Amino acid sequence: MSSPRVRVVIENITPCIDCGRFPIKRTSGEPVVVEADVFTDGHDQVAAVMMYRHDSATEWHRAPMKAVGNDRWRAEFTVQQLGSYQYSVCAWVDHLDSWRRGIRKKYEARQDIHVDLKTGALIAENMAERAHGTDAQRLREWAAAIVDTRRDLEARMALIQTESIRELELRYPDPDIVLHWDTPLEVEVDRERARFSTWYEMFPRSAAAAPGQHGTFADVQKLLPYVASMGFDVLYLPPIHPIGTTERKGPNNNPQASAGDPGSPWAIGGTEGGHKSIHPELGTLEDFKQLIAKAGELGMEIAMDIAFQTTPDHPYVREHREWFLERPDGTIQYAENPPKKYQDIYPFHFESNAGEALATELRTVIEYWISQGIRIFRVDNPHTKPFPFWEGLIREIRRLRPDVIFLAEAFTRPKVMYRLAKLGFTQSYNYFPWRNTKQELLEYFTELSRPPVSDFFRANLWPNTPDILPEYLQYGGRPGFMIRLVLAATLGASYGIYGPPFELMDGRAVEAGKEEYLDSEKYQIRQWSRDNPASLREFIALVNRIRRDNAPLQSDRGLKFHATDNDNLVAYSKTRDNGDAVLVVVNVDPHHTQSGWVQLDLLTLHLPDSGTFQVHDLLSGARFIWQGPRNFVSLDPGRAPAHIFRIRTRVRSERDFDYFL
Amino acid sequence: MSSPRVRVVIENITPCIDCGRFPIKRTSGEPVVVEADVFTDGHDQVAAVMMYRHDSATEWHRAPMKAVGNDRWRAEFTVQQLGSYQYSVCAWVDHLDSWRRGIRKKYEARQDIHVDLKTGALIAENMAERAHGTDAQRLREWAAAIVDTRRDLEARMALIQTESIRELELRYPDPDIVLHWDTPLEVEVDRERARFSTWYEMFPRSAAAAPGQHGTFADVQKLLPYVASMGFDVLYLPPIHPIGTTERKGPNNNPQASAGDPGSPWAIGGTEGGHKSIHPELGTLEDFKQLIAKAGELGMEIAMDIAFQTTPDHPYVREHREWFLERPDGTIQYAENPPKKYQDIYPFHFESNAGEALATELRTVIEYWISQGIRIFRVDNPHTKPFPFWEGLIREIRRLRPDVIFLAEAFTRPKVMYRLAKLGFTQSYNYFPWRNTKQELLEYFTELSRPPVSDFFRANLWPNTPDILPEYLQYGGRPGFMIRLVLAATLGASYGIYGPPFELMDGRAVEAGKEEYLDSEKYQIRQWSRDNPASLREFIALVNRIRRDNAPLQSDRGLKFHATDNDNLVAYSKTRDNGDAVLVVVNVDPHHTQSGWVQLDLLTLHLPDSGTFQVHDLLSGARFIWQGPRNFVSLDPGRAPAHIFRIRTRVRSERDFDYFL
Repeated sequence: MSSPRVRVVIENITPCIDCGRFPIKRTSGEPVVVEADVFTDGHDQVAAVMMYRHDSATEWHRAPMKAVGNDRWRAEFTVQQLGSYQYSVCAWVDHLDSWRRGIRKKYEARQDIHVDLKTGALIAENMAERAHGTDAQRLREWAAAIVDTRRDLEARMALIQTESIRELELRYPDPDIVLHWDTPLEVEVDRERARFSTWYEMFPRSAAAAPGQHGTFADVQKLLPYVASMGFDVLYLPPIHPIGTTERKGPNNNPQASAGDPGSPWAIGGTEGGHKSIHPELGTLEDFKQLIAKAGELGMEIAMDIAFQTTPDHPYVREHREWFLERPDGTIQYAENPPKKYQDIYPFHFESNAGEALATELRTVIEYWISQGIRIFRVDNPHTKPFPFWEGLIREIRRLRPDVIFLAEAFTRPKVMYRLAKLGFTQSYNYFPWRNTKQELLEYFTELSRPPVSDFFRANLWPNTPDILPEYLQYGGRPGFMIRLVLAATLGASYGIYGPPFELMDGRAVEAGKEEYLDSEKYQIRQWSRDNPASLREFIALVNRIRRDNAPLQSDRGLKFHATDNDNLVAYSKTRDNGDAVLVVVNVDPHHTQSGWVQLDLLTLHLPDSGTFQVHDLLSGARFIWQGPRNFVSLDPGRAPAHIFRIRTRVRSERDFDYFL
Repeated sequence: MSSPRVRVVIENITPCIDCGRFPIKRTSGEPVVVEADVFTDGHDQVAAVMMYRHDSATEWHRAPMKAVGNDRWRAEFTVQQLGSYQYSVCAWVDHLDSWRRGIRKKYEARQDIHVDLKTGALIAENMAERAHGTDAQRLREWAAAIVDTRRDLEARMALIQTESIRELELRYPDPDIVLHWDTPLEVEVDRERARFSTWYEMFPRSAAAAPGQHGTFADVQKLLPYVASMGFDVLYLPPIHPIGTTERKGPNNNPQASAGDPGSPWAIGGTEGGHKSIHPELGTLEDFKQLIAKAGELGMEIAMDIAFQTTPDHPYVREHREWFLERPDGTIQYAENPPKKYQDIYPFHFESNAGEALATELRTVIEYWISQGIRIFRVDNPHTKPFPFWEGLIREIRRLRPDVIFLAEAFTRPKVMYRLAKLGFTQSYNYFPWRNTKQELLEYFTELSRPPVSDFFRANLWPNTPDILPEYLQYGGRPGFMIRLVLAATLGASYGIYGPPFELMDGRAVEAGKEEYLDSEKYQIRQWSRDNPASLREFIALVNRIRRDNAPLQSDRGLKFHATDNDNLVAYSKTRDNGDAVLVVVNVDPHHTQSGWVQLDLLTLHLPDSGTFQVHDLLSGARFIWQGPRNFVSLDPGRAPAHIFRIRTRVRSERDFDYFL
């Protein structure tokens, strides 16, 4: 940068996370809009080129950037191939273009331009030295032509503006004056399901038809149509590994298990094996692989739980004591968060000298299940293992299998959650369970949907999980479940529910003020009346069908909140550049009818300032004619606590019969 | 970063400009508040230390950082020595502190902690291995004491909390788990005048007492008391070099000069010499040095103009033709901004192969004048020379002379102006001349007074310059000049006026719609009635006295705008952490009395929510008792268009006679 010959400046490239330390995220088919400030001293023009390539390519693609005002330049490319792309910007002082603009002004001011023409010819001849074949020849011909006094001056001025010559200019800049952005930035490209996914969590052991029986993979297989009928495309199972017996917990987290208590699936490791084994009562590896295959036939994937911790009975404890922390009394350090003790769980000791061997072994766990056909991993408590461990693991896995998806289950402080997303987790659990009011939803989802967060953090919204029965669901009744479902399914392109407690509206907590389920499946087998006519099953299916049919709901981009004059009414839209728009209005009060005026940002919705348009409620099927920005809404939670409107712009006049497409 | 042993994360260090590419700016005695996000996985505690050192020092100072919430950590240091400091952050997982918090909770829960005590002792013994002398001994003694079963358990728990042990912990972390921020950040430290300066610009050739005579340095010397009496501390002179004769411009930029026309001082270079020579009619080098010395006696510095361009008569043109761009017809390229031509000016050709030699020569120009005693340079049009040239020049100069100040006269696009400030210019001209309304002032000065801009861009506010007679001054009459002076002098810790046109309120433009002065001193010698009783001289002196007496006005930090219900009333305060506060209310309408309510942000002003306080108008001497946030103001521009209030908080009760300090 110290040579005064390189006069151009490149600043503030976006998108960019932490000065390029981390890649941004996109899914195949999504655009990357690259911007940078590019300028130079004085009056000269600059040229800027965006460069990009997939990691597997040797050649860079180059695309000219366009000035969009205030020295900001922009270009975009679309990622297709999974894996990693790099993008960068180079720029230079464009002498030929500067000269072109100058000579035109002089010509228009009727000044003598003969010497200027020679200057331009010289610049082009120099450029020709750097060009090849016909390009070089064309530059030389052009140079000769503009100083050819036999030609009419006006014709030569026209020649100077020729578009094809400008293209050549961008191809052969003087490399001595070209500035390249220091380090290329990266975009990590995932498959579509990383962006748009609909999850259903269930405990396989509660899948048996007969009461009191331990469910098996075969039982789960029988339930696949049930899950698929609701429109889910990811079926997530808690850990399927052998469960430890030492210090096993009983129902409702009772410190003393009784004989026959199944224990928590997250207490991984027993005499039957560890993280690469299957709990015998669930079935065999073959059963599991068949489940994966059958799910696939119904358009669903099985997501596995990865919980990197062991019970005292795990084979690792015998075989690799060096992977655990030994206390001064010779015992292994169990998990604790003083004064709480979790004596049934041993955390791995990543700081040990054997840390690298441990990290390698844990990577083989992922690799093993990938080899069995798994492509989605829901990672339990990643925030209790070192960040560099995850960064290395995910990078290694994705290097060979970029279609693998990792969901981070880190309910912790915001910066920790963001760090995990930055370092590679594809999707992330988030604070949705505790964002209930209009202001809470607006602030949080505005933060998530804007850069830089939107470039690295893909939220997966869960109204409930086996660990979280939010107060809202405990007291909101049926409308509460419907409200939270609509919010999750329309605010988040990815969302999930823990069923059957969700669709069967189980709101019973273990005690008042706690978010723990009563008789939680974490510690016992449950029976569920999946065909209960009160089930939300149909409603869920409808909402998921709306998601599938409406592309704006399949991306977290394009989220915009609209003002309402009633704080119980939350209004937001999701739009796409092509004009597609979905408008959602939710009454977040599960107990009372709420009415009010929605003040639409018409520009966002691609609607004209005035005139009418149709809003078609995809939940009820009702259609309303609205006009202008201000429209009235009334929502009775007992009937339907939300509208999911498809906006249909008026494309014909009253001369036609069908007003709306 | 790939070892899972280094579990701590450092993110988002501030202050930081463009990912550390440029230093921040401070003046001697100012604090640098360093913040960073520091966290780790799991429940462990982290420790963070801020490190800093002056470039001339080999050892780093270390200061522990404090958590200020949401994983943000903070520490500060005060820069004293001029030149460059570096600062950085290191952090680690603090095992001893994590252990301390855990064992305390267990102890309070009455759990058995004997094994835990041994764990702590082991950590301390390991730490002792890294410590020296008495520190090592103290750690070992402490380790022995806490496991000494002859001691009372409660006494040992008290020992664990000992502050002196915590200090040792910060000193001897395990280097294998300490993370250092990649590259230290820099702060460039200037002397106080870089932050707080009051400039007066005048043309020496108009300084003669006798009409028609060419003023000399000796004449300027006689005017020093006049300038000093108004409270200025920088006297800036346009170029003092020999003026070219080729294509010399006549009065009012007449393309044809007549015999005896002095030409523009920015047309540098004649038979008498170039940038290192003095225009003979102004006097000798000795005269100039005497002027510098005499100004110094009155507390003023002479600022020189650096305009890196030449006339066709400059010695460089003969001796270093390679420093200019040759056109195809063999002539040298004169300055142009097509279709405008400036045939009296040759720009340097920095992109030439001789660019480095040129840059070196130009640096010797600065060095030459430094050797004559100059420490302040006002740089003409720096935005028409390459950024890397300035970056290298300023770095080289400041390496040896960090007391040198460079003011960038770049009236151009915002990003170009910011870049020049980032790369090293100490102060910058800015858009103040065209920011007249409440909204314009609020937006612009809010931007300038906040990071990151406030960390690199020091605005120097000029209501007028020889190039800029803003419309506001052409039509605003005497109140217009007073309003612009108060705004410049109180919004900007550094400001300047071009006199005598300013204090004598010359508002005559060369033609309507232009900002050019009629009979501009740029092209002719002017006579000024400096003792005209209508002069603003006394008012300027008063305003500058107020600046000297009130520290809040000597810094651009702490600027805050307050709401008013009349858009002609602009209200803002400058405050210091110690509670000092100045409140300015300006009527920006020079023609009518404007009244309204000011809604004060009392928290910013260190005032209580209710109760009375005194505002003392330092311009009129009037005192008002105000109460609460909402207070009435009425300003007649014909009498006094502004209040500059010193806020005096009520420190005694009604039991005393003197309410206010």
